[in-house]
Amino acid sequence: MDCTLRPAEAGDSPHIMRMIRELAEYEKIPHFMKLTEEVLHRDGFGETPWFRCVVAELPEKSKSEAGVPFAGYALFVNSYSSWTGRTLHLEDLYVSPKFRGHGLGRRLMKKVAQEGVRSGCSHIHLSVLKWNTPAISLYHSLGAENLTEEPGYQVMIFPEEALRNMAIEDPQ
Amino acid sequence: MDCTLRPAEAGDSPHIMRMIRELAEYEKIPHFMKLTEEVLHRDGFGETPWFRCVVAELPEKSKSEAGVPFAGYALFVNSYSSWTGRTLHLEDLYVSPKFRGHGLGRRLMKKVAQEGVRSGCSHIHLSVLKWNTPAISLYHSLGAENLTEEPGYQVMIFPEEALRNMAIEDPQ
Repeated sequence: MDCTLRPAEAGDSPHIMRMIRELAEYEKIPHFMKLTEEVLHRDGFGETPWFRCVVAELPEKSKSEAGVPFAGYALFVNSYSSWTGRTLHLEDLYVSPKFRGHGLGRRLMKKVAQEGVRSGCSHIHLSVLKWNTPAISLYHSLGAENLTEEPGYQVMIFPEEALRNMAIEDPQ
Repeated sequence: MDCTLRPAEAGDSPHIMRMIRELAEYEKIPHFMKLTEEVLHRDGFGETPWFRCVVAELPEKSKSEAGVPFAGYALFVNSYSSWTGRTLHLEDLYVSPKFRGHGLGRRLMKKVAQEGVRSGCSHIHLSVLKWNTPAISLYHSLGAENLTEEPGYQVMIFPEEALRNMAIEDPQ
């Protein structure tokens, strides 16, 4: 698996979008998927990027055989901890099924870590589905700790409707 | 509680740092605290801010009595979901003990929500300690859902040592 890992470029959007859809299928939540290629492109490669992405590009000779240019990707954002300062939040780590078992997930994680160290970050945080044991094993093998066990963090979300209701000004 | 909610400014750093320390005491993790006022100031108010912050400023007449200018703050970052696009991540929501019980946490959340809607965000996510029931009740009352219950997300972190080890290049 002689892939080249590099920062994503604007022209990569359609292929990243395809892999995001594959990941949503794997996570069994394709019905939650609202993102479009157009929005992904605007948010990732506009004047103020909202995320950062690394792609695993196949060697030229493998691209036509595989029918796709990339074997996987990692999507992450700059984040902040009020205990330790700059951090990265890993949103997605994905390797297409036929390219698994060659250490590509580990290589992508290492690349994200290098980006983090270069940016002066002190740690990387992420949320992972409890049944996704291959991902959890990978993260543990690279030194990750489960904060839901100890000290006991839970993940909460304000969905779009709650967000919009909250944003309404109270009557004076 | 006639506080004014406004975006934090560079001169607010010492007071935000004080409230961050108070929050770390409340969360029983003051030993994890490595952030300094200098770093907070650089990261929040430099050329490329790493976080956004809203402060609840006391009325002038209350400042000298209270000995502090702010009753609380919310610290948040731009983040991204590969399902829905732009989001906010809420890192901290804090109201000093003597100013609690006047709906200030709710007002701060509403202000963060307004910032989110203005930025084109689709939701707000956060992590909260399981025993912090006042915060969880507030979030639930404003429409938040617990993703650790369903679909079952857990929070993981690569601490600094793991991050630095990962970032080392494998021998070729």
